[in-house]
Amino acid sequence: MKALVYNGPGLGVIEDRPKPVIQAPGDAVVKVLKTTICGTDLHILKGDVASCLPGRVLGHEGVGIIDSIGAGVTAFHAGDHVLISCISSCGKCEYCRRGMYSHCLTGGWILGNTIDGTQAEYVRTPHADTSLYPIPEGADEEALVMLSDILPTGFECGVLNGKVAPGSTVAIVGSGPIGLSALLGAQLYSPAEIIVIDVDDNRLEIARQFGATHTINSADGKAAESVKERTASRGVDTVIEAVGLPEAFLLCQNLVAPGGIIANIGVHGQKVELHLERLWSRNIAITTRLVDTISTPMLMKIVCSKKIDPSRLITHRFRLDDILKAYETFGNAADTKALKVIITA
Amino acid sequence: MKALVYNGPGLGVIEDRPKPVIQAPGDAVVKVLKTTICGTDLHILKGDVASCLPGRVLGHEGVGIIDSIGAGVTAFHAGDHVLISCISSCGKCEYCRRGMYSHCLTGGWILGNTIDGTQAEYVRTPHADTSLYPIPEGADEEALVMLSDILPTGFECGVLNGKVAPGSTVAIVGSGPIGLSALLGAQLYSPAEIIVIDVDDNRLEIARQFGATHTINSADGKAAESVKERTASRGVDTVIEAVGLPEAFLLCQNLVAPGGIIANIGVHGQKVELHLERLWSRNIAITTRLVDTISTPMLMKIVCSKKIDPSRLITHRFRLDDILKAYETFGNAADTKALKVIITA
Amino acid sequence: MKALVYNGPGLGVIEDRPKPVIQAPGDAVVKVLKTTICGTDLHILKGDVASCLPGRVLGHEGVGIIDSIGAGVTAFHAGDHVLISCISSCGKCEYCRRGMYSHCLTGGWILGNTIDGTQAEYVRTPHADTSLYPIPEGADEEALVMLSDILPTGFECGVLNGKVAPGSTVAIVGSGPIGLSALLGAQLYSPAEIIVIDVDDNRLEIARQFGATHTINSADGKAAESVKERTASRGVDTVIEAVGLPEAFLLCQNLVAPGGIIANIGVHGQKVELHLERLWSRNIAITTRLVDTISTPMLMKIVCSKKIDPSRLITHRFRLDDILKAYETFGNAADTKALKVIITA
Amino acid sequence: MKALVYNGPGLGVIEDRPKPVIQAPGDAVVKVLKTTICGTDLHILKGDVASCLPGRVLGHEGVGIIDSIGAGVTAFHAGDHVLISCISSCGKCEYCRRGMYSHCLTGGWILGNTIDGTQAEYVRTPHADTSLYPIPEGADEEALVMLSDILPTGFECGVLNGKVAPGSTVAIVGSGPIGLSALLGAQLYSPAEIIVIDVDDNRLEIARQFGATHTINSADGKAAESVKERTASRGVDTVIEAVGLPEAFLLCQNLVAPGGIIANIGVHGQKVELHLERLWSRNIAITTRLVDTISTPMLMKIVCSKKIDPSRLITHRFRLDDILKAYETFGNAADTKALKVIITA
Repeated sequence: MKALVYNGPGLGVIEDRPKPVIQAPGDAVVKVLKTTICGTDLHILKGDVASCLPGRVLGHEGVGIIDSIGAGVTAFHAGDHVLISCISSCGKCEYCRRGMYSHCLTGGWILGNTIDGTQAEYVRTPHADTSLYPIPEGADEEALVMLSDILPTGFECGVLNGKVAPGSTVAIVGSGPIGLSALLGAQLYSPAEIIVIDVDDNRLEIARQFGATHTINSADGKAAESVKERTASRGVDTVIEAVGLPEAFLLCQNLVAPGGIIANIGVHGQKVELHLERLWSRNIAITTRLVDTISTPMLMKIVCSKKIDPSRLITHRFRLDDILKAYETFGNAADTKALKVIITA
Repeated sequence: MKALVYNGPGLGVIEDRPKPVIQAPGDAVVKVLKTTICGTDLHILKGDVASCLPGRVLGHEGVGIIDSIGAGVTAFHAGDHVLISCISSCGKCEYCRRGMYSHCLTGGWILGNTIDGTQAEYVRTPHADTSLYPIPEGADEEALVMLSDILPTGFECGVLNGKVAPGSTVAIVGSGPIGLSALLGAQLYSPAEIIVIDVDDNRLEIARQFGATHTINSADGKAAESVKERTASRGVDTVIEAVGLPEAFLLCQNLVAPGGIIANIGVHGQKVELHLERLWSRNIAITTRLVDTISTPMLMKIVCSKKIDPSRLITHRFRLDDILKAYETFGNAADTKALKVIITA
Repeated sequence: MKALVYNGPGLGVIEDRPKPVIQAPGDAVVKVLKTTICGTDLHILKGDVASCLPGRVLGHEGVGIIDSIGAGVTAFHAGDHVLISCISSCGKCEYCRRGMYSHCLTGGWILGNTIDGTQAEYVRTPHADTSLYPIPEGADEEALVMLSDILPTGFECGVLNGKVAPGSTVAIVGSGPIGLSALLGAQLYSPAEIIVIDVDDNRLEIARQFGATHTINSADGKAAESVKERTASRGVDTVIEAVGLPEAFLLCQNLVAPGGIIANIGVHGQKVELHLERLWSRNIAITTRLVDTISTPMLMKIVCSKKIDPSRLITHRFRLDDILKAYETFGNAADTKALKVIITA
Repeated sequence: MKALVYNGPGLGVIEDRPKPVIQAPGDAVVKVLKTTICGTDLHILKGDVASCLPGRVLGHEGVGIIDSIGAGVTAFHAGDHVLISCISSCGKCEYCRRGMYSHCLTGGWILGNTIDGTQAEYVRTPHADTSLYPIPEGADEEALVMLSDILPTGFECGVLNGKVAPGSTVAIVGSGPIGLSALLGAQLYSPAEIIVIDVDDNRLEIARQFGATHTINSADGKAAESVKERTASRGVDTVIEAVGLPEAFLLCQNLVAPGGIIANIGVHGQKVELHLERLWSRNIAITTRLVDTISTPMLMKIVCSKKIDPSRLITHRFRLDDILKAYETFGNAADTKALKVIITA
């Protein structure tokens, strides 16, 4: 079968690989119908993700059809249409019992990282019963690819951790796909105001289309002042960091109101400065999270009941043969204005 | 009346001052019976607290008897024995309505800071109805002085924010009065293990007497390793920072388990490093808080029902005339082994 | 001044009364601009509310202008436009501190019950600082009359107590003003489905216009079966009782899913049957609540940001002179199709 | 093997049965070391539990040694010492994902009910990975039998649902094994007062030994008055129903304070009266629950760290051969003063 393989820093190539087989009773092999590319895949290709070794098939998102199942799988059968979660969960360990699937002792983020992933014609998914989700008949499967990772990530790490609430004020720093995903999720809780901050006017325009009540281009370094002005100097109740850079995290610290929360989504590659000399007495919380995908079934209902349309995140479409072009497009988002790309296997 | 006055960096003197008078309908004037000294008072004397100007009577803790009340005070009468909270709360503003008394728009920590405080024969307390607490008959008033600040601080900023729970594991970094206070409060929730970490063996011995299940002297720089060993490499569910220094906060980051909380109590004078490059995916929370004293009525019940005996924190006693000696004793805790001192007016 | 006075069962009359005066430092006298009639007012007129004695001016809802304030009032001044909460809250007692204003030891529901109310040209409001709310400039004051009681009642007793959540399923039993109010509030949390049940097709039609995803006329006694069918036999996560009759409460017990909540809003005049022989093992909760109006400031923001338009509840308008006609219209809702009436003083 | 078999109302007999075998990949067969009798077993023998058909081996509690495992079991191996939970949980279904193991779609309370149970030399346990718990070396296995059902039942249905908190007031109606179990669990949260109510002075004496701060014999019908007196007419924050009779549930309604919770544990065989005409405005909650045993790992830690000693519940010991005598002793608790009996296989 065809697969996109990471062969070391800078080397992503299409290879012919043997179709994966069941290795453990809980496994399923899934024929991939649609997959996508995540910012993390770009990091892997740059050589930034130490856990992912050369030779790995990339990809941790997608929808597909069950091809075969192991002896222990009870929830699925060959032919079932399924959503593949970016997080594999055994359902048995201490962390899974607490709903922290991201820290599953034999799972977590392994697809396209420590085991072969979804940017291929077939993928083996461990712990299938608790890591795949049945797709209701008639659902828009392309839209559901957004539920593998990006939508639950924005929702769990940003909206749930940030305790967005009716009437509250929210600032989202970063208007890329993940920030926009948080923006879609935040509206489920009817905050009074959602301010989106970025340096790219095009992305801010999209944020307004997606429901931002106000946008700020922070290129002039005055975003914090501007937010203070809009909030009678208080700051906002929830600040969502959707960038992953020290300066973005710094800005968040200047936006949060007393009693507020900074909910970090960004993948950080370096340490940041935390101004505890100002914040120690401000009754704030800072949260971090690798998505647990516990909200996947709920988001499935929300998408099926049309309260969120995640297909709005999809800007480009490719065939698996052209996945290198898809990487190029996604990697040059500033020029191509790409948000999420769909790859059809 | 006699009062301890801050007259600029390094200058704490006993002065004769006029007895305070009612200035607003919500005021009470309280005859101080017992007061104490807080670590913050030492900071003020060093000149570290910009909001506290020379000429200020210090002190934000104490018990006393109502001397007179303003026209709007309905909950108290002259002669009532009361606990004075370190936090003044109007009960009306947005923050007070949310239980964030520390950020009361016309209150918060003002006593011995922006208005004259309790290290005197009399003190004027604004917002008396919602900032004083009636003392039940027969209560140990000396012990209750610990409820003005230190016990609710350890409980709210450390135990409540840290979500200490039955069966959970807790590490407290810093075994001074505030760490010990958190230690007393944590036991109300029956955690399975409370590890106290400090560099002073004497203080660790006291921690064991106060209920620590394990203590670690961190002088050798191996505290994190030691905690990891005791917890099967997981770390602990709740880490309480009770020091206020960058290196202590750094240690906390190495102790927290996935899904855990770092609850900061320490007063920080400088920024700290936050290792988001390790923590972004660990599902942790960091909380800060200036005590709100919302737990004061509950802690009063707890103390009266003998579940906590805060008088164990009291190591020395002085008369108001000798308050400078009390400051000296409290300021040299390493030598004097002082925890909290009681000053009788 | 003119006032609607309860003079014993069946006797509501317009009388000339002296303008109220400040009695306590915390009082305000408010010139009433707009008021409305509540179902409870009808109960009083029938003689069903023992606490309300003959001679009482009725009414506990309204907006107005501050006429005069007591010496202790700090948040308001003569001329301020204010919303009058149906619940008076001292802000100081144990219950107010816990956010249970409805059980305030010197307040709660007293207006138009144990003291004179708002269906008059002027009303004296005790605990003004914590029982009145400033109206933002430019707000639709008529719409805000719905925030005195009915909107927070639906929201707090139904939506908050019922823990309505994104993607959840909700059933509202009763499509009168209070059920519709819960329906508006529930949508702030984006449930996947809101089923409204009533015996009046006209009211069900309005429910659909207000956002119900499905309606059921329960006249045939098959509402529970119908809900079970729609929910794969599970029942719904949140059932809101908005009727106040034993048979409605009985129906609720047949609608609730395992793990669900029955949130009672209805005012009950008699005991009900609770089928614990079926429910003891179903992991459900039943909640009751007299509205605390803690959500009033939040709902004010929500209304001002146009997320809810409560003026949709207003069906009829009268002048204070015609208030008896307003009572007649509101009391014959089945014929007049009245939801809420506005009375302009 | 020997087993206690229910052969129809009134007919419990010791029979020789074939040793159970693995039927599904997730099964384990456990050699039973210790088991006990539950009040529910008595109900079954009376013929009160329709789901349990004649021919059933009874018992849903116990500790044992893994004898054999199915192909899908990964957490256990032959020879492991395990605690058998009364609730079987698949770990995969919607309810298990939400922590509602009691409503597991293919599990729940099935042992000794719809499949053969633990009052035998061997038992087959479905969903072994998520329904058995490893016993730490050196633990008191007899004491751990109390963790199969009674201790988590008291804790989850009574203490957690009842939101027992530091400084709060608790009343437990019923001082039998389940009430005492709630009493032990409640103390993990340091309430200020725990009042236990029963009609049997002997049981009340035991309650005092187990930590009740006050006991009331309700035989004179004045328990509610007595509680009101002790609580300044407020009532208590948490009322735990541990009887399962209409009159006990009625008493609970007279004990609960405004804002309080009635947490039902009792197994009810008939409907009860709920006085909504008094309670609708009291801001209370009523909760029901079949134990989910989600707290079992936590309680294991608590027992191993000696914070609770559940062996105090054990009053009698028998060998499996004498299990009929054990039933007689347990069934005549009023005379034998039996709380829990241990049966050694």
